[in-house]
Order: sequence, then structure tokens, then C-alpha cells
Amino acid sequence: MRFTKMEGCGNDYIYINCFEEAVNQPEKLAIAMSERHFGIGADGLVLIMPSKKADFRMRMFNLDGSEGEMCGNAVRCIGKYVFERGMTQNKEISLETAGGIRYLSLNVENEIVKTVGVDMGEPILEADNIPVLHESSPVIGKKITVNEKELAFTCVSMGNPHAVTFVEDAQALPVEEYGTLVEMNAFFPNKTNVEFVQVFDKNHIKMRVWERGSGETLACGTGACASAVAAILNGFCDREIQVSLLGGELTIYWSEEDNHVYMTGPAAFSFDGVWLRGV
Amino acid sequence: MRFTKMEGCGNDYIYINCFEEAVNQPEKLAIAMSERHFGIGADGLVLIMPSKKADFRMRMFNLDGSEGEMCGNAVRCIGKYVFERGMTQNKEISLETAGGIRYLSLNVENEIVKTVGVDMGEPILEADNIPVLHESSPVIGKKITVNEKELAFTCVSMGNPHAVTFVEDAQALPVEEYGTLVEMNAFFPNKTNVEFVQVFDKNHIKMRVWERGSGETLACGTGACASAVAAILNGFCDREIQVSLLGGELTIYWSEEDNHVYMTGPAAFSFDGVWLRGV
Repeated sequence: MRFTKMEGCGNDYIYINCFEEAVNQPEKLAIAMSERHFGIGADGLVLIMPSKKADFRMRMFNLDGSEGEMCGNAVRCIGKYVFERGMTQNKEISLETAGGIRYLSLNVENEIVKTVGVDMGEPILEADNIPVLHESSPVIGKKITVNEKELAFTCVSMGNPHAVTFVEDAQALPVEEYGTLVEMNAFFPNKTNVEFVQVFDKNHIKMRVWERGSGETLACGTGACASAVAAILNGFCDREIQVSLLGGELTIYWSEEDNHVYMTGPAAFSFDGVWLRGV
Repeated sequence: MRFTKMEGCGNDYIYINCFEEAVNQPEKLAIAMSERHFGIGADGLVLIMPSKKADFRMRMFNLDGSEGEMCGNAVRCIGKYVFERGMTQNKEISLETAGGIRYLSLNVENEIVKTVGVDMGEPILEADNIPVLHESSPVIGKKITVNEKELAFTCVSMGNPHAVTFVEDAQALPVEEYGTLVEMNAFFPNKTNVEFVQVFDKNHIKMRVWERGSGETLACGTGACASAVAAILNGFCDREIQVSLLGGELTIYWSEEDNHVYMTGPAAFSFDGVWLRGV
């Protein structure tokens, strides 16, 4: 089976072109392929598929085999993949995901996709729709105690749930320990992704992310969007924010005009491959 | 550039066939390719090359770019590679390494290499030749204090230096912490690999390994040989020993007849690939 390894801000997935390859057991394949010593090694598996509702469809599976709704970094990689591999000549692309249809805008120079802008849609701020158990919306400053320390979370869905907390020093934080506890907290009926955010100034934040089902990763596009929205809701930042992730830089813009969140960032090919093991 | 990813007991390297590909800066390439999010991801890079002294030659580079002398798991993978990829029809193969020539014996069923036996040569027990700073040889029970805890090391070279210590519970040990301190200890002029070994019985041990320049890995073939030799020297084991590693099982036999150490174990293809990034 042929595959391609790509990364967006170090968030690395295995991409399979399902116009050419048949994947019967994506959950099992995601687990086997994602393993970093016996498999290919990745944060998960992404399938590029035909769509009846949009130009293309993506399905993504985390390294534990669970299906994810959306991943902003993967969406950018798909934009680069379908354009540079000749599957489209359009620079404006619609993509069906389990979190809704996403619209991509490719910044192309000499037939190379330099960056991809993604309309990530409107942030979902209603507690029931994130979902998070809370009596009012938006959910700002929700107190959760982890390891005897009380943290305040702002909750945002970008098609998938995020719980964002602001910290003084993101680098020093025990993200694995806190991340697990918050992900599994009973306030989140579908579990949650967790972001730890340090504010540098009105237009620049640093984020570390604990991805539901995957653990800490170098980057998470929807997490960057949720963190930017949370920073704006709390009055810490303006509408356009540079988000520094462990794996690279993203620019997030939350438009007052249409209420949509726009994310722009890099995407890169690492290697093409042929899988030589069974599922 | 084309490459193949293989693993022996989970010790995973990127293999490049230098009969077909030219590698100009292997140190830099090893660093770029070994990185697990932006690169291919591996414990290091192995070059399969022509030899004037043997059937084939290998050079290996750790993930920090330093050149390694030998790796038993990589040697087994090369045996499988050159046979199954049609580069030889012999089941007895000689391989030039920076740690000397190694002789491989392939166990083949239906043209598939099931396991590979490797004559790892004689263990080097003289302190000056390992090298380790010590007044006598063999070096058994050398006391080294790490984090205020005194550990006793038996020192063996299998073409590369190893310091083996016996522990009650290998699983519970802080291998990263201890490994770094021993690797860098001034007793070892060329640094050292470090093995933490738990003895189950006369014919079965468990080993965790800290590889010089790479950190903890799932397996290390020369480390398994050195650990078996150390267990025999200390009177803990008989001459044939099953070594359980985090990544799989090896059988080590230290022959009284010729004083050579023989290692038998698995090797597997994971995937073929084409690298799409620069160095």
C-alpha cells in the first residue's frame, strides 16, 4: 500500500490517497502504521477520499485508532497534496471533514504551495454543543482541579472540543500529567483536547497542546484556533494572533465581519512510501 | 533518494543501498532523516556499500550524526536485505563494519529470511582495548557512583564499548538518568553504551539499554552479547542465554570452543520510501 508522510508545524500524519488505494480497516491500520519503531511513525492516519458534498473528503484516525473530527494541520497538508499531486488545479478547495466542510485557500509560487489558509468556520461557544457540562455560555474561566491545583478553562469547539487554560510558563508545565487529567474529566462528555497557553503580547501567544487520544503533539491547528479565540474572549489579545507552537508558527485571525476563524500556516512533504507489513 | 526502513527487535534504522544511491553527507542526513516528526524517524542511518574485504560493507550513523562501529540488530537486517533484494544468493555472508568483519548465517524458508545468526566475534575484555580506565582485566564489578547510588559494572567490548550492571528490577529503573551519567563518566575515554540487566535464571535475562549517542532504544544486539558475556563472567548464567529486550527476543551463545559470541534473532522490513526533503 502506498502512502505519503507529511507534516504541518511538526504535526505529522500518514496520508493515503483513497482514489488509488483501498483501506478496509482504517482503525487497525492507523495503530499499526503510527507506531514509531515497528510502523511508519506518525501522530495518526489521514485518508484522502472522494466527496459528494465537496471537492475532497478527509477522514483522520489518531494513533490509538479512534477517529478524529478535524485537524487543521492535516487540512493544510491535504491542500498541498491535492494541488501538487495534480488532483486539482484550483487554489480554492472545499474539503468535507467529520467536523463539517472546510474551505482552503492555497498560496502558490511556481506551482509550489507555500502556505495554506483555512476557513475554520465559526467557533462553537455554547456549552451543550462543545460539549462541556456547564450552566452558561460562553464557558470562560471554568475551574477544574488537577493534582490539587485549580486551573481556569475557556471552552471552545472548532468542530472538536478544546479546553484552554492560560499559564505563566508553558515550557515548564507538566503537560502530560495535566493533559490526561483534563481530557478525562467528567465535565467533558466526549473528552477534550487541552491547550496550555502563555500570552506574550496582544498579537503573540505560545501554545502547548494535549491531543485527545494522541498525547502531547508538536502542533494542533484547531487547538491554535481555539486558543486564539479563548485569548480574545478573555481580553488578552487582538483579533490577529501569531501562535508559536513547539513545531512551528501559525497565524490565526478571528473575523468580526463573518465570525469565522482563519488559520494560515505551512505544510510539507517528508517522504513517499510503500508499506511492507500487514495491518 | 530511495531508502528502506527495517527493524530488528524494534531497533529501527533507515537503510540506503549505496550500490544505487550516492550519499555525500551521511552525518547530516542521519540527523535529518532520524528525526521522528519532520524526518523519517529512526534510531539512525545505515549505509549498505561495496567492500574490498568482504561481501558487503556497512556504515552506521546514530541519530545525533555520530558514526557507530557496529550494531548487531542492523547487521541482521542487512542479511535479510541483501538476500531478499537479490544482491546475493548466499546464505553465509561476510560484512565489513567499523568494528571488524562480521559473518552472517541466514535461516531461510521459501526465500524468506526468518532469522539471522551472526558471529559477533570474540568479546574484548582487556580494559585498554574496551576502552575503560581500570588497573586490571577483565573489568568486573567496577564501582561507579551515579546520583549518590553506587553501581557495579562489568565492561565488555563487542567492537564497541559496553558497561553492564545487574539490577533487581530493570523495568523500574530510571534508565535515561543513569544512562547519561554512565555514558559520560570519565572512566570511558570513548564514552560507553550502558546495559541494565535483570537475571531471571541461568538461561534467561532481561536487558534495557542506553545507546551512546542515541539514548534508550528498544534493543541493541552488541549490548545483548555484552550483557550475556557479563552474566557468564559473573557466574549468573550458562553459555546459552535468551535475552528479553523491550523490542523482542535474542538468543546469545558464547562458545567455549572458539571463544566467539553468536547472536540469533529476527529482522523485518517495515516500508520502502523516497525522501522528499533536502539534507
